Amino acid sequence: MAAIEITLGVDIGGTNTVFGYVDRKGNCLASASIPTNAHQQAELYFDRLQGAAKTLFSNIKESTQLVGIGIGAPNANYYKGTIERPPNLSWEYVDVRATLKQYYSVPVTITNDANAAALGEMRFGAAQGMKDFIVITLGTGLGSGIVANGELIYGADGFAGEIGHTIVDPEGRQCGCGNRGCLETYASATGLCRTAFELICKSTEPSELRAASYEKLTSRMVYEMAQRGDRLALEAFEYTGKILGTKLADSVAHLSPEAIIFFGGLALAGDLIFKPTKQALEQHLFPNFKNKVKLLPSRLTAGNPAVLGASALIWTDLERKAI
Amino acid sequence: MAAIEITLGVDIGGTNTVFGYVDRKGNCLASASIPTNAHQQAELYFDRLQGAAKTLFSNIKESTQLVGIGIGAPNANYYKGTIERPPNLSWEYVDVRATLKQYYSVPVTITNDANAAALGEMRFGAAQGMKDFIVITLGTGLGSGIVANGELIYGADGFAGEIGHTIVDPEGRQCGCGNRGCLETYASATGLCRTAFELICKSTEPSELRAASYEKLTSRMVYEMAQRGDRLALEAFEYTGKILGTKLADSVAHLSPEAIIFFGGLALAGDLIFKPTKQALEQHLFPNFKNKVKLLPSRLTAGNPAVLGASALIWTDLERKAI
Repeated sequence: MAAIEITLGVDIGGTNTVFGYVDRKGNCLASASIPTNAHQQAELYFDRLQGAAKTLFSNIKESTQLVGIGIGAPNANYYKGTIERPPNLSWEYVDVRATLKQYYSVPVTITNDANAAALGEMRFGAAQGMKDFIVITLGTGLGSGIVANGELIYGADGFAGEIGHTIVDPEGRQCGCGNRGCLETYASATGLCRTAFELICKSTEPSELRAASYEKLTSRMVYEMAQRGDRLALEAFEYTGKILGTKLADSVAHLSPEAIIFFGGLALAGDLIFKPTKQALEQHLFPNFKNKVKLLPSRLTAGNPAVLGASALIWTDLERKAI
Repeated sequence: MAAIEITLGVDIGGTNTVFGYVDRKGNCLASASIPTNAHQQAELYFDRLQGAAKTLFSNIKESTQLVGIGIGAPNANYYKGTIERPPNLSWEYVDVRATLKQYYSVPVTITNDANAAALGEMRFGAAQGMKDFIVITLGTGLGSGIVANGELIYGADGFAGEIGHTIVDPEGRQCGCGNRGCLETYASATGLCRTAFELICKSTEPSELRAASYEKLTSRMVYEMAQRGDRLALEAFEYTGKILGTKLADSVAHLSPEAIIFFGGLALAGDLIFKPTKQALEQHLFPNFKNKVKLLPSRLTAGNPAVLGASALIWTDLERKAI
């Protein structure tokens, strides 16, 4: 029997790196993780990564052949194969493609994690068969991957798809990027907590939120309070969805997608976030677009979604023979 | 000598329709216009149009062959070949492709005027060689055409590219589309006049603007006052550019275009509009995108730009053999 062709999908996060071997149909044959140790030199990191990937590979029982490597990472540049000034990582500028050439002779492709998620949804998840859609990743920040005419939009410089840094209010909340009022300062796990604290100050309503410190509060805790009926926690979700939906109406005006797919921790809050988002979206849509755009949860549920996304990235390029 | 292949480019406006025969290189061999008479039935209109186009064709001295028809029109749907509920026209729903089949056997393609302008710039104008750019048409309203990965973005429903209806302020100015605070209520010829009148009310500064009625004031008059140094007229341009630039930073965050190209009457105001737009754009860009995006005037200057755009639309489709 011929060897199964597999790709290595890698998701580089600020804390951990997850990676796995994925076949053409999205079956993950093996996966593992290592701490990223973001303060270490990039060279040491990639040496550790390839060692761990090698060990994992040797555990696979099927006869397989590695045909490519796909990587999702913050501030990754698809065209150049680099990571540039990534937030939460101490690396200034890493030529990932050149670095991995020391270890592998197969093609390597890199993009940011939200773009990888979009390709994952198109290939294996909720966007199968779609040619125009947007993936929004709701985690610590807000990432986005845009597909139009069946292709991921990288833009002129390889960095397109930063919907998290569209501006809600030019005088608004301070953002890690240096600007003010970016969407991700409102619509993200962090944004939800900021909103919760704003609501405590504005209102005199009793709330469990008043017992938490800003440092300790997580979006998970706000979710659990909301589940228990805490009014301010519920209001924090309402407000988050309202801002998110209003701004997504702008995204629809640009791109007229078939669907917007939500991915990541905060998206698991279900109706608490979907309902107000949908309502604000529909309210602000240009009439031609009303009642057309589906809001869907991610369907990358089998195996690690970020690994599937990174793997979809390299499968897509291999099939296009772009590399 | 073989006959020169030409296309018929048509731009359907609320008042006039301009049309012309354009070769593959963008030379306009002949052009003319007819009143649109928007209150008349669509069937009568297309009958008049084909009659006038036939007359014009008979005047061309070169040996030519018509190979296709491209049409730019408000609320035109590329996929369906229709015009649907166009503003400023009384037609409810017109199947343009079917209607023209009565007269022509060549392929017919239709899109909105700003999309046609974008294809015109890519083929014959300022965007030659670019794969990622945005065209903004600044006329009575604000239209936009988006090109990514070398292709025009039509979106899932054929109506993508409505940057004029992204929202500056959900509580803001009333828009013809039924929403509030749309970008085109600020950044357009009409928006400039609305701003000028707001400034009269806010300030006690003497200004020529105080002598004009709202009905009579045109963006051209505001431009001429600004040229003469009228402070409120100058401020109206500043404010318009500030809003436009701030919102275009959102467009860049989505698409990371190589350039944004300005087309239409208000774009002719030059630095009065370009300078404040550029400044606000740069101020609000996500750091990765700063100092990269070119702001350019249209270069569709030979012949009628809207006719060249409509012609580029059909040339593009003919060469892709999409039709």
